[in-house]
Amino acid sequence: MKVLVVNCGSSSLKFRLIVTDTETVIAKGLFERIGSNGGHFVYSPTDGEKQERDVDLPDHDAAVHILIDTLTNADTGVIKSLDEIDAVGHRIVHGGDKFSHAAILTPEAIAAIEECAPLAPIHNPVNLMGIRACMKYMPNTTMVGAFDTSFHHTIPEKAYLYGIPYEYYRKDRIRRYGFHGMSHEYIANETAKLLGKDVADTKIITCHLGNGASITAVKGGRSVDTSMGFTPLEGIIMGTRSGSIDPEIINVISERENKSLKEVMNILNNKSGIYGLSDYLSADVRDLTAEYNKGNENAIRALSTYAYSIVKYVGAYATVMNGADAITFTAGVGEHSFLVRKLVCDHLQFLGVKLDEKANKEADGTALISAPDSSIKVYVIPTDEEMSIARQAVEAINAQK
Amino acid sequence: MKVLVVNCGSSSLKFRLIVTDTETVIAKGLFERIGSNGGHFVYSPTDGEKQERDVDLPDHDAAVHILIDTLTNADTGVIKSLDEIDAVGHRIVHGGDKFSHAAILTPEAIAAIEECAPLAPIHNPVNLMGIRACMKYMPNTTMVGAFDTSFHHTIPEKAYLYGIPYEYYRKDRIRRYGFHGMSHEYIANETAKLLGKDVADTKIITCHLGNGASITAVKGGRSVDTSMGFTPLEGIIMGTRSGSIDPEIINVISERENKSLKEVMNILNNKSGIYGLSDYLSADVRDLTAEYNKGNENAIRALSTYAYSIVKYVGAYATVMNGADAITFTAGVGEHSFLVRKLVCDHLQFLGVKLDEKANKEADGTALISAPDSSIKVYVIPTDEEMSIARQAVEAINAQK
Repeated sequence: MKVLVVNCGSSSLKFRLIVTDTETVIAKGLFERIGSNGGHFVYSPTDGEKQERDVDLPDHDAAVHILIDTLTNADTGVIKSLDEIDAVGHRIVHGGDKFSHAAILTPEAIAAIEECAPLAPIHNPVNLMGIRACMKYMPNTTMVGAFDTSFHHTIPEKAYLYGIPYEYYRKDRIRRYGFHGMSHEYIANETAKLLGKDVADTKIITCHLGNGASITAVKGGRSVDTSMGFTPLEGIIMGTRSGSIDPEIINVISERENKSLKEVMNILNNKSGIYGLSDYLSADVRDLTAEYNKGNENAIRALSTYAYSIVKYVGAYATVMNGADAITFTAGVGEHSFLVRKLVCDHLQFLGVKLDEKANKEADGTALISAPDSSIKVYVIPTDEEMSIARQAVEAINAQK
Repeated sequence: MKVLVVNCGSSSLKFRLIVTDTETVIAKGLFERIGSNGGHFVYSPTDGEKQERDVDLPDHDAAVHILIDTLTNADTGVIKSLDEIDAVGHRIVHGGDKFSHAAILTPEAIAAIEECAPLAPIHNPVNLMGIRACMKYMPNTTMVGAFDTSFHHTIPEKAYLYGIPYEYYRKDRIRRYGFHGMSHEYIANETAKLLGKDVADTKIITCHLGNGASITAVKGGRSVDTSMGFTPLEGIIMGTRSGSIDPEIINVISERENKSLKEVMNILNNKSGIYGLSDYLSADVRDLTAEYNKGNENAIRALSTYAYSIVKYVGAYATVMNGADAITFTAGVGEHSFLVRKLVCDHLQFLGVKLDEKANKEADGTALISAPDSSIKVYVIPTDEEMSIARQAVEAINAQK
């Protein structure tokens, strides 16, 4: 099958055209600055020349229109007609508790996604704009939605409920949902392959460390707990997000700094994390690493506290799964920061983790970074959320047959 | 030495007169309903008859006056004069980052406690009322303050900082302080005795599970991490407190339920925990256990989620300490609920914990409840915060000499 994967942000649209049987990417690209002046388009056909140009992008509809023309026209195209595309796989952030798998986007499914919008008020409406634009230009193509949350649907009640009045779960569906599901699922499956095992027989801790970051306990290929919660604010310390804190801190900052609840939430989302901890030095682990190596105490404080917050989740998840076969690092920081991986793994001796310092330092792409006598294997694996969406789209279509 | 331990709540005063050399209690008791009608006094001299009576208690000063008369008068007294009391040990909730040990209450120390009042606006002023009343009636007796927070002073920076802007630590001292310090210290020391080791050579996870509850990682007799944080709201699920939640939940409850920040904080402190999770069935583990055994789903949900929140902290703390020699349960729930201990320990197989089901069920007072082949010993030890305060008072006096 050929699947076009579409991932819409509020002002962007990323795409990838994938032949799913061979997991080959035919073309990929990105629209930026949608809805403002200075729209920009990057297009990379695998067997052709990369192109970049400024384009007029009043809305996501305009981007999809250009995308389709580019994929099919005589000069730049990689397919002869839209009929070659078997399905479009859309990334949708929040499926609430309605979607435990990717779904064919029937009118009923779209209505259900709209109902989940209050849980992701910025993301879901944008995702729906992308879906509607694709439906307009490809009315005969199967549309599939893949959800950031659905992989975490298998988390048991004791792990997804908070210690708050049960009525807020009943009425408002306040519970742990978890995010980065495509990445965690993809990484768990790739890790199982490297372990030479059926994923059903594995226990894997997946550490998706990007600007947003989450850690998942994956047992038998199913998520059983994850560090992000009702929203992507909870869990480990992130680039600019606080992660978990004493809830009373919100009240105290509001009082002492004379700030509204909205202002405090903005601080916790955008001024916190390693950025806030480093006294606003940087939210980027690369910058902080350079300063860490110079002995800058702001950088040392931020990275040490960040790594420690990861260690606690890894220890907790090894415990709740009654062991782990592997710990895998992925996403920007997880794939590229050997310092962060070292700061984390050096505190995992109790779990039997022994880092291969050289392999860790030299890791580039997929790599085993634990020593041969480490009782838990530690990997670096580049994540591929688009491939995960394409796989899920195929599964959804096959399930329908 | 004879030490009078005084523990003032907003409407209560608990006391205990202790001979510290033998750790013998000579008398103990409680004043209740201070400041409202219907004041009540209970007095139990160890070698005499227990007494209870209604008394007029306009303030803590009145309670201290009655206490001193009762301890020294010819009918009920256990000492001949106040001169026999070498020191009064006061329980003080918050020592901020000023007090790493119990302190002789000089005018400077009292001023420092007053400075910490914003960190514990309900508790510290009440504690100071008790101190001033005692100073008035015992002007020549050494007063010592012991702090709930001071045992946690050894927590390293990476564990006490939150992922929030560093300026809030600098300006407002927002950091993890931890509480129940007297209990965690006492329990760690008692556990070391049972292990037959110097506490300096031990790694112990102390689980203080009462209505308020916290878990501490104690390495070499020093707290290295603890689940309560800036305030006693953070950490595991408690009787009516939520423990840690996604911070964004505060914002969402405020919006959807149209509640002020203060109202939401009240819900998280007083309507949450196992009380809220059980759909308001009960905040008391004894009630919930009775219902759990009848198959009541509200009780099963609350206790399972509660125990799971404990398991994650124990796993994290075994990891950060690189192992544990013992896990000890204490306080109301920890000492008396074999069901909670079982629900927790059944999920600690990875750590090498093996419960002795019979010993767990029959535990009454201090008991070893792990099986002989458990690689971590599990104990139940009744806590004794008053004895801890008396010990700390002696240490403070000796340190001064």
